[in-house]
Amino acid sequence: MKFVIQRDLLIESIQHVMKAISSRVTIPILTGIKIEANSSGIKLTGSDSDISIESFIPKEEDGIINIEEIEQGSIVVQAKYFPDIIRKLPLNTVEIKTDDQFQMTILSGGSEFHLNGQDAAEYPQLPVLRTENSFDLKNDLLKDLIRQTVFAVSTVETRPILTGVNMQINNAELNLVATDSHRLATVTVQLPDDYLNLSFNNIVIPGKTLVELNKIIEDNENSISISVTENQILFQTEHLNFLSRLLDGNYPETSRLIPDQSKTEVLTKTKSLLQAIDRASLLAKENRNNVVKLETKANNVLEISSNTPEVGQVTEEVITEQIDGEELKISFSAKYMMDALKIIQEDYVRINFTGAMRPFIIKPAENEQILQLITPVRTF
Amino acid sequence: MKFVIQRDLLIESIQHVMKAISSRVTIPILTGIKIEANSSGIKLTGSDSDISIESFIPKEEDGIINIEEIEQGSIVVQAKYFPDIIRKLPLNTVEIKTDDQFQMTILSGGSEFHLNGQDAAEYPQLPVLRTENSFDLKNDLLKDLIRQTVFAVSTVETRPILTGVNMQINNAELNLVATDSHRLATVTVQLPDDYLNLSFNNIVIPGKTLVELNKIIEDNENSISISVTENQILFQTEHLNFLSRLLDGNYPETSRLIPDQSKTEVLTKTKSLLQAIDRASLLAKENRNNVVKLETKANNVLEISSNTPEVGQVTEEVITEQIDGEELKISFSAKYMMDALKIIQEDYVRINFTGAMRPFIIKPAENEQILQLITPVRTF
Repeated sequence: MKFVIQRDLLIESIQHVMKAISSRVTIPILTGIKIEANSSGIKLTGSDSDISIESFIPKEEDGIINIEEIEQGSIVVQAKYFPDIIRKLPLNTVEIKTDDQFQMTILSGGSEFHLNGQDAAEYPQLPVLRTENSFDLKNDLLKDLIRQTVFAVSTVETRPILTGVNMQINNAELNLVATDSHRLATVTVQLPDDYLNLSFNNIVIPGKTLVELNKIIEDNENSISISVTENQILFQTEHLNFLSRLLDGNYPETSRLIPDQSKTEVLTKTKSLLQAIDRASLLAKENRNNVVKLETKANNVLEISSNTPEVGQVTEEVITEQIDGEELKISFSAKYMMDALKIIQEDYVRINFTGAMRPFIIKPAENEQILQLITPVRTF
Repeated sequence: MKFVIQRDLLIESIQHVMKAISSRVTIPILTGIKIEANSSGIKLTGSDSDISIESFIPKEEDGIINIEEIEQGSIVVQAKYFPDIIRKLPLNTVEIKTDDQFQMTILSGGSEFHLNGQDAAEYPQLPVLRTENSFDLKNDLLKDLIRQTVFAVSTVETRPILTGVNMQINNAELNLVATDSHRLATVTVQLPDDYLNLSFNNIVIPGKTLVELNKIIEDNENSISISVTENQILFQTEHLNFLSRLLDGNYPETSRLIPDQSKTEVLTKTKSLLQAIDRASLLAKENRNNVVKLETKANNVLEISSNTPEVGQVTEEVITEQIDGEELKISFSAKYMMDALKIIQEDYVRINFTGAMRPFIIKPAENEQILQLITPVRTF
């Protein structure tokens, strides 16, 4: 294998595949990056068995030459050294070649590196995903969907299925749900009518997959293609394949958890409420799992408070736009409430309560796509 | 105590005194911030017994009112909560008051905090430092002096005196020395003739003191006053007192360690050498304590290399300006060499070797104030 490449392109590609590489893998060769060269360009692969990322650098793109002097071949090099070496090379032009002892030579300016590699034939074959079940989303929409749900997945392994986000498509409606059984986040968007015949239900994508995917996708209006099989999902952009296993098991039916009535409704500025809860939580960190109290008061005022006898107490008054319905005193996790409010970009938020012991609903005031639910804590 | 203050000023002052506060102190009240109000303004104090910082906010400055409604008094509040509370308050105007139960009330917009405090009378008295031994330096010069030496102090406690920087003044010449016994950094600057009668020798300032001081001093041409007694040093700016204990013991005589002859002299670009050593060290991290080899070659070329059989090898060619004297092969810690080169702002550096087993000297090419010494590692 041999090629001469622009360093910046190689660095970007390395950064992508590194997102899938972990030092804690059971198959030692997966601590390496696989590099393959052929007449069309260079492909890098990183994998931890759960997630696999392939990044392709074409030889030529839009009339610009990216790679020269390509000689076909492949190698696996240690991900612990290769990225730092490339990043620190003195020139933007890098020559990379390998010999038949799986040793890689890296040349740039006055630098000459020889790195021990491994036979790429020993690298696990990625499954070739074949499916008719695929659809396209804009990058920025996919990033929004991830951000609006993934924070609510469970981080404990007691119910592994809850560490993922459930994706459903029915009647050209895409719905994502995440819950850790104490709070739930869901978002629904309409797809084009082309997808009326597409239907998935029990697709559960690991939270980690979505977190890493979100880091790689650029925030623009390019399209990403999503293909699903029974146990894998593939996200494809022009030069990137991001493949992940899906979680095994049945995702719980969550729609029945969402109350269909409301006894108290609050309409308020998202940011004022978020900041008041943030402050009230400052004194709640040690005690009772970061719980704050909320009370409706006269004149459309909400009072948020917290009391930790050893430290002190705090009372926050939030002047809302409107409070309708029954008076209310309720306690909940400040962290859950802040997580919920942080992902709402709209200026106003609507909260519907059905009593101090029942889960309550948070929605952007003018957006029916997003719905979040938080279970209160019993303290009153 | 009571006062109404601009939040930004209070935050800045809190950030200063927090540099001295540690959660691991033996005197529990030192985990707090002492706040004192009197008719001239507000004083905050933080201390871990070794370092004490006082920050003063005047009631009025340059005709601008900083603080209003001052009622004299004092309190100690927990440093774990107070800074975050002030930082997150909704308005820039903050009212702070205390009652006779040592409870502090903080009011800003719709926020009302009550924080348990402690009697300021129980806070240790800071020693009042009285000395004739004082001199002034410009902030930016002091910051340079710290940066040029403190990295070389010892971080192990086997010889505690080496964890500090030795400061000497003789004949209006200020000299700082730091060494961990494997490498040494020293810098000498001329003071005005006003200080011809000032003389210190065995002043050893803890490295940690200088690191924290460097974070607080702004990088400008204002003056800082430095006063020294037998066991304490005080750095004073207009609104800040930074007091530190000095280290006990005799600092070793280091001047005899510096070779007065040279067998090989190299003149080269600082940055090229630094980057070549940085790259060569990439493969040296696991093996032999980050050691790289340096060899003089024909045509004014230096070769830096490293070889870790399990990983690979690297050779870096640095084209120098000039190499004079004997041929040389020497091995040294890449980290020590990079530390030394990083603090040199000049474009060119001069290195004088007196053989593979002897310490070598690194100096900026056009600056006799700075001198660094590194002991080689025996590998050839």
